[in-house]
Amino acid sequence: MITRMSELFLRTLRDDPADAEVPSHKLLIRAGYVRPVGPGLYSWLPLGLRVLRKVEQVVREEMAAIGGQEILLPALLPRAPYETTNRWTEYGPNLFRLKDRRGNDYLLGPTHEELFALTVKGEYSSYKDFPLRLYQIQTKYRDEARPRAGILRGREFVMKDSYSFDVDDAGLKDAYHAHREAYQRMFSRLEVRYVIVSAVSGAMGGSASEEFLAESEVGEDTFVRCLESGYAANVEAVVTRPPAPQPFDDLPEAVVHDTGDTPTIATLVEWANGADLPQFAGREVTGADTLKNVLLKTRLPGGEWELLAVGVPGDREVDDKRLGAALDPAEYALLDDLDFAKNTFLAKGYIGPKGLLANGVRYLVDPRIVDGTAWITGADEKGKHVVGLVAGRDFVPDGTIEAAEVRDGDPSPDGMGPLVSARGIEIGHIFQLGRKYTDAFAADVLGENGKPVRLTMGSYGIGISRMVAVIAEQQHDELGLRWPSAVAPFDAHVVIANKDEDARVGATGIAGDLDRMGLEVLLDDRKSSPGIKFKDAELLGVPWIVVVGRGWADGKVELRNRFTGATTEIPVDTAASEIFAALTS
Amino acid sequence: MITRMSELFLRTLRDDPADAEVPSHKLLIRAGYVRPVGPGLYSWLPLGLRVLRKVEQVVREEMAAIGGQEILLPALLPRAPYETTNRWTEYGPNLFRLKDRRGNDYLLGPTHEELFALTVKGEYSSYKDFPLRLYQIQTKYRDEARPRAGILRGREFVMKDSYSFDVDDAGLKDAYHAHREAYQRMFSRLEVRYVIVSAVSGAMGGSASEEFLAESEVGEDTFVRCLESGYAANVEAVVTRPPAPQPFDDLPEAVVHDTGDTPTIATLVEWANGADLPQFAGREVTGADTLKNVLLKTRLPGGEWELLAVGVPGDREVDDKRLGAALDPAEYALLDDLDFAKNTFLAKGYIGPKGLLANGVRYLVDPRIVDGTAWITGADEKGKHVVGLVAGRDFVPDGTIEAAEVRDGDPSPDGMGPLVSARGIEIGHIFQLGRKYTDAFAADVLGENGKPVRLTMGSYGIGISRMVAVIAEQQHDELGLRWPSAVAPFDAHVVIANKDEDARVGATGIAGDLDRMGLEVLLDDRKSSPGIKFKDAELLGVPWIVVVGRGWADGKVELRNRFTGATTEIPVDTAASEIFAALTS
Repeated sequence: MITRMSELFLRTLRDDPADAEVPSHKLLIRAGYVRPVGPGLYSWLPLGLRVLRKVEQVVREEMAAIGGQEILLPALLPRAPYETTNRWTEYGPNLFRLKDRRGNDYLLGPTHEELFALTVKGEYSSYKDFPLRLYQIQTKYRDEARPRAGILRGREFVMKDSYSFDVDDAGLKDAYHAHREAYQRMFSRLEVRYVIVSAVSGAMGGSASEEFLAESEVGEDTFVRCLESGYAANVEAVVTRPPAPQPFDDLPEAVVHDTGDTPTIATLVEWANGADLPQFAGREVTGADTLKNVLLKTRLPGGEWELLAVGVPGDREVDDKRLGAALDPAEYALLDDLDFAKNTFLAKGYIGPKGLLANGVRYLVDPRIVDGTAWITGADEKGKHVVGLVAGRDFVPDGTIEAAEVRDGDPSPDGMGPLVSARGIEIGHIFQLGRKYTDAFAADVLGENGKPVRLTMGSYGIGISRMVAVIAEQQHDELGLRWPSAVAPFDAHVVIANKDEDARVGATGIAGDLDRMGLEVLLDDRKSSPGIKFKDAELLGVPWIVVVGRGWADGKVELRNRFTGATTEIPVDTAASEIFAALTS
Repeated sequence: MITRMSELFLRTLRDDPADAEVPSHKLLIRAGYVRPVGPGLYSWLPLGLRVLRKVEQVVREEMAAIGGQEILLPALLPRAPYETTNRWTEYGPNLFRLKDRRGNDYLLGPTHEELFALTVKGEYSSYKDFPLRLYQIQTKYRDEARPRAGILRGREFVMKDSYSFDVDDAGLKDAYHAHREAYQRMFSRLEVRYVIVSAVSGAMGGSASEEFLAESEVGEDTFVRCLESGYAANVEAVVTRPPAPQPFDDLPEAVVHDTGDTPTIATLVEWANGADLPQFAGREVTGADTLKNVLLKTRLPGGEWELLAVGVPGDREVDDKRLGAALDPAEYALLDDLDFAKNTFLAKGYIGPKGLLANGVRYLVDPRIVDGTAWITGADEKGKHVVGLVAGRDFVPDGTIEAAEVRDGDPSPDGMGPLVSARGIEIGHIFQLGRKYTDAFAADVLGENGKPVRLTMGSYGIGISRMVAVIAEQQHDELGLRWPSAVAPFDAHVVIANKDEDARVGATGIAGDLDRMGLEVLLDDRKSSPGIKFKDAELLGVPWIVVVGRGWADGKVELRNRFTGATTEIPVDTAASEIFAALTS
C-alpha cells in the first residue's frame, strides 16, 4: 500500500524545538517522528514507529539466529522478587514505585533479571532443558534524574533484554559470546559505528561485562581506547598498568619536614621546589611526586560506617565514577565535621599513611603506588609533611583501588601505546551474571549426576528506542535525517514536483509499480511547492528520492541518493525497474 | 524455521491450576501459553506470544484497511490532561497513580482520549487535514477490583485503541460505521461468535455507543436480546417499552388505608389480597400493582448531596448497574440514619409520591408508570398505604429513569417479541464521543469558511490480550485448546510417534518441506511416549496434527483435524503437498 503524504499524519516543523539539545532530538521532532508528552516521555508518530519496528525486527531476527526464544513479561511487577535481591532498595530514586488499590507495593520494571530467573525456575527442573536463551522486546521504565536528548535517554523506553540460563560456566561463556556476535551482526545491519568496551558490572552483579558504545560526541559515556592495539574500555573499567616495583636498597630514609601552611598539593609542591631536597636534585618536583590521601566512609553490610582512605598520586583526582564502581556495591560518603571531631588523629591537609595505618583506618592505594616508590606525603601533624616515604618499606597499604582519574596519554593496560578518550552512547550491554540471581531464588535443577545444580545466568540488553536516536545522530547531515535501508521508514520517496496532471498520474504509476515490486513507498502528492517538498524529503531522510519534475516532458525522472547526494536521470518507461534495481543492489 | 519441542521453552501441566476458574484460564496455563506473575499480571510464554501477535496482526490489517494510521503513546502519563477532563478523579481506585522523583503525579494510562486529542491539536490546524483515524496497539493498565479468569480481565493488558477526528457529525458517523464494519471483519477472521449490543457511554461521555460481546457463559456482562428481531443491548442500555397512557375518566378516587405492619411489598400484597379492594375484584393483587419508592442521595457538581427518590413497580428491584448508568456521572449513595433523622417526613416502608413531592424531593419513576396507571403505594405515615393513586392525576413525577431490572420475557423495545438474557465478554466498544474531549482541550481547526471548528471525536477499543482468552474460551473442547488458523501459534504440529530413526528423519523431512512452503511448523521431536505427545498436541491446539507413527513402515502418515477430529491417512511421498493443500484450502 502506497503511503500518501496528503493523508499521512505528519506535520514537519521549520524551526528547531526550543528545548532540544542534540541534533537527533531536533531532527526527530522537526521531521515529525516523535513528540514529547512529558519529561522523558515520547509519542511515536507514524514515521517514528515505522523505524522503531524495523529496529525491533533486525534485533528479533538476530536473536532467533542464536536460538533466542521470545516471551513477554509485564512491566508492572510486584515488589517481592526485587526485595529478595535488594534491588527494590538499591535502585534508589531511579525506580518508579507505586501501590495498588489494596496498598501492595509494585514497581515499573527497569530490567527483568528477577522475573526471568523465577520464570525459568517455575518451568524447568532438569539439566536436559538447558542451555536456554530467552528474550523480550518490552517497554521499560527508569526515573532518570535528567531525562535528556529526546528518546536518547527517556523514562519510558523500549529494550530488548535477553537472559541465558546454563548449568555450567562453559555454557554461560558460550551464551555470552553468541550474544556478543549477534550484537555485532545487529549493529552492522543497522549501520551503527560502535566500539566494544570492557565494563564493570555495577549494580547488576556478576563477573565479565562489556558495553557496546555508539561513537558520538553527544554521548554521556566517556571511554578510552588505545589506537595502536584496539583496546577500549569504559572509564570505570580501565585497569591501571602499574610500574615495576623498585628495590629499597639505595633509598634514603624518610625525613619529616616543617612545611608551613601547605594543605594543598599546589602549596606542597611549591614548598618542595624551594626546599632543595637531595632526592630531586636537578629536576622539578611535581604533583606526581606527592601522595594524596582522600578520606571517605563506607557503609558495611551490617549498616555501620567504616573509615576508608584512598591514596592517589597528588597530580590525579579521585574519579567519582571509578571510585563508585570499584567500591560497588558499598555505599560511601565524604566525612563530615563530626567524623573529623571523633577522629582527632586526622590532620586535615596533612594526613599520611603512617597515621592512617597506626589508627586502623582501611587504606587502599592507587596501583601506581608500588613497593619501592618514594613519596612526599602528610606527616599527620598540622604544617608537617614527610619526604621520601617508601611504599612497602615505610608503610604497607591494605590493597589497591582503581579510583584515580584516567587521562589521555596514560599507558594502555596492554602496554601497546597511550590511551585517548572519546564519547559514546551505550547501545548494548552484556553481562556474565553468574549465580547472583539464581542464588537469590535458589534456582536449581537436577544435574546429570542426580544432584542439584545451581543455574548460571547471563543478561544482555539493547536499547531499541535509543537506537533510533543513535542512528539519527550518526547518520544525519545538515539537511536532515538519513536512514540506512534496514530501518528506513520507506524504501523510496516519490516526489511529485510538476503540476501537470499527466506527471501526477505518472508519478503515482511509478509509486504503484514500486509498491507491487514489494517496496515501501511514500508518495508526496501534496499541493505544496516543489521547494517545500524537496526540503521535507531531505528532512525525512528516506534513502532514495524519486523526483517527477521538469524532466517529465522529456520522458525523464530523477533518482537521488539521500546519502551521497548523487542524482541520476532515468527514462520514465523503465523508471520503476531501474529504481528497483538501484534500491535492491 | 521449524520449532522443535525439544528446544521450545514449554512445560505443559497435567493438572488444572488450583486458582483457575474458567476453562480458558485453566487451559492457557496448562498448555504453557501464559504464567501468572501477580494478581491480574501475566507473562506470555512463546506459544501465547505467537497467538497474541497474530491477533494484533489481524487487527492491524483491518485498521489499515479503513485508513487507520498507527502511532504509539506512552503508558506513563502526566496527570494534567486527565485532571482537565476530571478523569483523574472519576476513575477512582481503578487508576494506577504514582509520583516521580520530583513528586509530580503520573498515571498508567487506562485509555488515551486525552492524549490523542492533544496530539492531534498539536499537529493539525486546518479542516483540510481531516478526516483522521489514528490508532495504537499498546499496553494498558487498570487496577481492577477483582482481576479474574487469567488474561480475560487483567490489570496490565494489550488493547487496540483508535480515535477518529472529524470536523462534522457526518464525518464522525462515517468513522463510527467504518470501525463497526472493520470490527465485524476482524471478529469474523478471528472466528469469534459475538453480538453487537447497544450500550451506554458511561464515564467515557458521548452519545451513541455499541459493545461487541463475545458469547460466553463465563462472561461478566449480561445482555438481552430479542430472538425475533435480532435486537440486542447491554442491560444498562435497554430502553423500557412503556404502556400507552390511560384516560383518567373512570378511575376511582385514591383512598388511604390502615394497612398495619406492612413495610415490605410482600406484606403489602398480602394485606391487599385480604382487603377486598373493589379495583381488584376478580383478580389477585401482585407486586406489579404496587409502587415502591427507593431513596438515594446524589452528589451535585458543587459537592453537596441531594435527595432522589426512584419509583419502580413493586415486583422489580432497582438494578445497580442500570441505575449507575442512568445517573452517570453523578455519584450516589443510599441514605444513612442521619439522613432519615434529618428528613422526618420520610416514613420508612411507607414512603409515597405525595410526601416526596410535597417536600421537594426529586422524584424519578420507571417508564411503566405512565399517566393513568393506578398504584398501591405508601401514604407517608407508618402503617398507612394509599390505594388507587393515579400517575398524572394524583402525582406528577419529575421524570423517568431506566433503573428497574430487566427480566427475561420483558417486551423488546422494538415491540417484536420478548427479551431473553445471555452472558458475554466485552471484546470491543465503539463510541461516538462527540466533543467532550475536544471541548476540554479547545481542539479547534480552521474551517472551510475561515472560522474555527471544534473537532468531533470517536473512540474505538478492542481487547487484544483478552481476545486470546475469548478465542480459547469459545473454541476449546474437553481435550484442550483449538486455534482458528488466523491465530494458531503454528499451522501444523508434526508428531514423531515412531522410534525408528528412519521415521524420525522422515518426519523432520516433512516438517522441513512444510516450512519451505511457508507454513509455520511445530515438530515434536522429544523422546517422550506417543501417548504423552498426542495428549500435548491436543492440549496445545494447533489446528492440524501430522502423526508420523505406525503407518510409517507402510509409507503412510496421518493428518488429524483438531477441530473435527477427522483423520486421514496419506502417502509419505506426497505428504507435504497434500498437507499443504489441506491446510490452505
